[in-house]
Amino acid sequence: MDGLSIIKAASAIGAGLAMIGGIGPGLGQGYAAGKASEAVGRQPEAQGDIIKTMLIGQAVGETCGIYSLIVALILIFANPFI
Amino acid sequence: MDGLSIIKAASAIGAGLAMIGGIGPGLGQGYAAGKASEAVGRQPEAQGDIIKTMLIGQAVGETCGIYSLIVALILIFANPFI
Amino acid sequence: MDGLSIIKAASAIGAGLAMIGGIGPGLGQGYAAGKASEAVGRQPEAQGDIIKTMLIGQAVGETCGIYSLIVALILIFANPFI
Amino acid sequence: MDGLSIIKAASAIGAGLAMIGGIGPGLGQGYAAGKASEAVGRQPEAQGDIIKTMLIGQAVGETCGIYSLIVALILIFANPFI
Amino acid sequence: MDGLSIIKAASAIGAGLAMIGGIGPGLGQGYAAGKASEAVGRQPEAQGDIIKTMLIGQAVGETCGIYSLIVALILIFANPFI
Amino acid sequence: MDGLSIIKAASAIGAGLAMIGGIGPGLGQGYAAGKASEAVGRQPEAQGDIIKTMLIGQAVGETCGIYSLIVALILIFANPFI
Amino acid sequence: MDGLSIIKAASAIGAGLAMIGGIGPGLGQGYAAGKASEAVGRQPEAQGDIIKTMLIGQAVGETCGIYSLIVALILIFANPFI
Amino acid sequence: MDGLSIIKAASAIGAGLAMIGGIGPGLGQGYAAGKASEAVGRQPEAQGDIIKTMLIGQAVGETCGIYSLIVALILIFANPFI
Amino acid sequence: MDGLSIIKAASAIGAGLAMIGGIGPGLGQGYAAGKASEAVGRQPEAQGDIIKTMLIGQAVGETCGIYSLIVALILIFANPFI
Amino acid sequence: MDGLSIIKAASAIGAGLAMIGGIGPGLGQGYAAGKASEAVGRQPEAQGDIIKTMLIGQAVGETCGIYSLIVALILIFANPFI
Amino acid sequence: MDGLSIIKAASAIGAGLAMIGGIGPGLGQGYAAGKASEAVGRQPEAQGDIIKTMLIGQAVGETCGIYSLIVALILIFANPFI
Amino acid sequence: MDGLSIIKAASAIGAGLAMIGGIGPGLGQGYAAGKASEAVGRQPEAQGDIIKTMLIGQAVGETCGIYSLIVALILIFANPFI
Amino acid sequence: MDGLSIIKAASAIGAGLAMIGGIGPGLGQGYAAGKASEAVGRQPEAQGDIIKTMLIGQAVGETCGIYSLIVALILIFANPFI
Amino acid sequence: MDGLSIIKAASAIGAGLAMIGGIGPGLGQGYAAGKASEAVGRQPEAQGDIIKTMLIGQAVGETCGIYSLIVALILIFANPFI
Repeated sequence: MDGLSIIKAASAIGAGLAMIGGIGPGLGQGYAAGKASEAVGRQPEAQGDIIKTMLIGQAVGETCGIYSLIVALILIFANPFI
Repeated sequence: MDGLSIIKAASAIGAGLAMIGGIGPGLGQGYAAGKASEAVGRQPEAQGDIIKTMLIGQAVGETCGIYSLIVALILIFANPFI
Repeated sequence: MDGLSIIKAASAIGAGLAMIGGIGPGLGQGYAAGKASEAVGRQPEAQGDIIKTMLIGQAVGETCGIYSLIVALILIFANPFI
Repeated sequence: MDGLSIIKAASAIGAGLAMIGGIGPGLGQGYAAGKASEAVGRQPEAQGDIIKTMLIGQAVGETCGIYSLIVALILIFANPFI
Repeated sequence: MDGLSIIKAASAIGAGLAMIGGIGPGLGQGYAAGKASEAVGRQPEAQGDIIKTMLIGQAVGETCGIYSLIVALILIFANPFI
Repeated sequence: MDGLSIIKAASAIGAGLAMIGGIGPGLGQGYAAGKASEAVGRQPEAQGDIIKTMLIGQAVGETCGIYSLIVALILIFANPFI
Repeated sequence: MDGLSIIKAASAIGAGLAMIGGIGPGLGQGYAAGKASEAVGRQPEAQGDIIKTMLIGQAVGETCGIYSLIVALILIFANPFI
Repeated sequence: MDGLSIIKAASAIGAGLAMIGGIGPGLGQGYAAGKASEAVGRQPEAQGDIIKTMLIGQAVGETCGIYSLIVALILIFANPFI
Repeated sequence: MDGLSIIKAASAIGAGLAMIGGIGPGLGQGYAAGKASEAVGRQPEAQGDIIKTMLIGQAVGETCGIYSLIVALILIFANPFI
Repeated sequence: MDGLSIIKAASAIGAGLAMIGGIGPGLGQGYAAGKASEAVGRQPEAQGDIIKTMLIGQAVGETCGIYSLIVALILIFANPFI
Repeated sequence: MDGLSIIKAASAIGAGLAMIGGIGPGLGQGYAAGKASEAVGRQPEAQGDIIKTMLIGQAVGETCGIYSLIVALILIFANPFI
Repeated sequence: MDGLSIIKAASAIGAGLAMIGGIGPGLGQGYAAGKASEAVGRQPEAQGDIIKTMLIGQAVGETCGIYSLIVALILIFANPFI
Repeated sequence: MDGLSIIKAASAIGAGLAMIGGIGPGLGQGYAAGKASEAVGRQPEAQGDIIKTMLIGQAVGETCGIYSLIVALILIFANPFI
Repeated sequence: MDGLSIIKAASAIGAGLAMIGGIGPGLGQGYAAGKASEAVGRQPEAQGDIIKTMLIGQAVGETCGIYSLIVALILIFANPFI
């Protein structure tokens, strides 16, 4: 049972480390939001197109954050090591 | 019980590490807020559109911060290792 | 009781680590405040709109800092591990 | 008593770590102060509005620094682990 | 069984480290989304072409995030060391 | 007495860590000073207003540095752990 | 068998470290995607040429990410140390 | 006496860590000096005002460096732990 | 055999560390790809020359990534220490 | 005597750490020197004023470097712990 | 033989650390490639001269990457410590 | 003698750490040299004044590097701990 | 012989650490190469002068990389400690 | 002899750490070389003056790199601790 404890402890640390990877997408999506707001401010009539572009671009960037979440959740709930 | 203690201690550390991932969305959303304020200052009549764009963009960026929160809360409250 | 001590010690360290995540929103909100001040300086008559935009944007960015605070407070006061 | 010592030692380290989170708001508020000074230099007659905007924005950014302080003070004075 | 536990623990940590590599693609894709939103704001009629370019470019950048995910998943589920 | 020594040692380290948080306000206030000097150089007659704005803004930013100092001093002189 | 366990554990950590090298290509390819989207927005008729240039350039940058993947996969599946 | 040695050793390390906080004010004051020199070069007749502004701004920024010094000196000379 | 295990474990870690060196060339090549795409967008008729220049420059930059790969592969497959 | 050795060793490490704080003033003063040279190049007749401004500004920034030196020298020569 | 193992293990780690030094030249050469591509895009007729300049400059920068490779290879193949 | 060895070993490490502080002045002086070269290129007739300004400014910045050297040399040659 | 092994192991690690110092010159020389290519693109007839300037400047910057190499080689081949 | 080995090992590590300080001057000198090349490209007739300025400025910056080298060489060859 001692070995199992070490695996579980390492999985908890690993899940925490994985979430640090969220710095990238979080910062990038904020950059996109800022640039889109700036663009809308310059051309309010193109607002629909700008938001659409921003959302598509952010959705792709979101994947990296979701990958981190997936790995963290797997380490916690579907951990095959235990 | 000793092994269980190590798991719990590691989960607390892991929850703390996960919240470091909040640097990204926090910084990105602030960037978006700054750019939007700048845009409103240039075109006050487009204020509604700019705020809408900013909020949609920030909402997507918020997801990464929420992922970090979810992982931290799961490690604390719904920890299957214990 | 020895195991309990290690959990409590790790929770204190984890709470400290979680607050490092406040670098992001703190820096981002300051950026927003700076950009808004600049915008007001250029268009003082739009001051109300600019402050409103800044506050909405900062409020969203605040969430990440609050998440860090929540996780730290839970680790200290509502810690289910103990 | 030995376990209690480790908890107290970890709380002191945790309080120190939490204050590192003050880098963000400190830097951000300084950025806001610089931008506002620049704006006043360009439009001295709008000084009241600019300072108001800067102060509101900084006040929001201040929250993250205060969160760090709160967590550090709780770890030192209202530590439920001891 | 003790040796096997160490391998499993190291694999969990390794999976967490691998996901930190997601900072790069996440930030890069957000940059692309921001630049594309800006471009659409300037030329709304070229929106289709811009989104297409952005998506192709992001798709290539996505590969690095997927590599990280693959290595993390292999370490968790298809680990030949166990 | 051995446990007390570890607490005291950790408090000294924690006080040192807390002061690292002074990087943020120190750098931010210098930025404000530079921007204000630049603004005075462009509009010497607005010097009083610019210095006033800079000082108010810096005073808010100063809080984060003072928080670090407070936590460090408490850890050294008013440490309830000892 | 104990020695073999340490090798396997170190290989898992090494594979995770290798994937951190993906930050570079991921960020660089996103930069390329952003610049290409911007260029298409300015000259939509040159879209084919721009995408071609972007893809060739990204393909070369991809190599570094693939090197990381190769080393990680070799450490996991074709590890000659075991 | 052994415990006292550890406290003293930790105080010496803590004093060293505290001085790292001097990076912020040192860099910020240099930024202010550079911006002021630039401003004097553009308006030599406003030199007195610019230097005054710079000095006031730097004096505020200096506080953070002094806080670090104070904490380091207290840890060395007025250490209540010993 | 125990000594041999430590060598093999260190080689696996060393190979992982070596691949972190791929951040540089990966980011640099992406920068080149972005600048080339921008240049093609401005002068589509010079596309051949631009791509040629980009590829020659990237090929030189590639060497550093390949050096990392070589050292990692030697540590894994042609390790003279074993 | 063993405890004394540890204190002395920690003081030597602490003195080294304190000198890392010299990165800030060193970089800032170089920035000031560069900006002043640039300003002299644009207005050679204002050279005396520019150099004076630069020197006053750098002298203030120097304090942080001197604080680091003082703490390091005290730890080495006037160490009250020994 | 145990001592020899530690030397060999440290040499493998050292070779990995040395390759991290490749971040610098790799990033720098990519910057050169990007600037050259941009220059060719502006003056396609000067392409030969630009590529020549870029290659000479990159060749000098390459030396640092080669130094890292040399040290890594010496540590692996021509290690006089063994 | 064992305690003395630890002090000497720590002094050697401390001297190495102190030299890391040379990053700041080295980078700052190079910045000054670059700005001065640029200024000379624009106004070759002011070359004497520019070089004088640069040298005075660099001389002040040099102090921080010299402080690091002094502390390192004291730790090596005039170490009062031994 | 055990002590000798530790010295040799530390020398190998030290040689690896020394090569990390190559990040600076490698990045700086690449910057010079990029700026020179840009300058040649603008004034192809001054190519000889630009390349000469770049090479002289890079040669000075090369010294720091060579210093790192020298220290690494001395630690490996001319190590007086062994 | 064991104590002597630890001193020698620490000196080797310290020499490696000292060379990391070469990042600063190496990067700074490269910046100077790039700016000088750019200046020569704009005013080829001022080439002699620009190179002279660059070399004087780089020579001062070189000192920090030489300090690192000196400390490293002293730790290796003239180590008074042994």
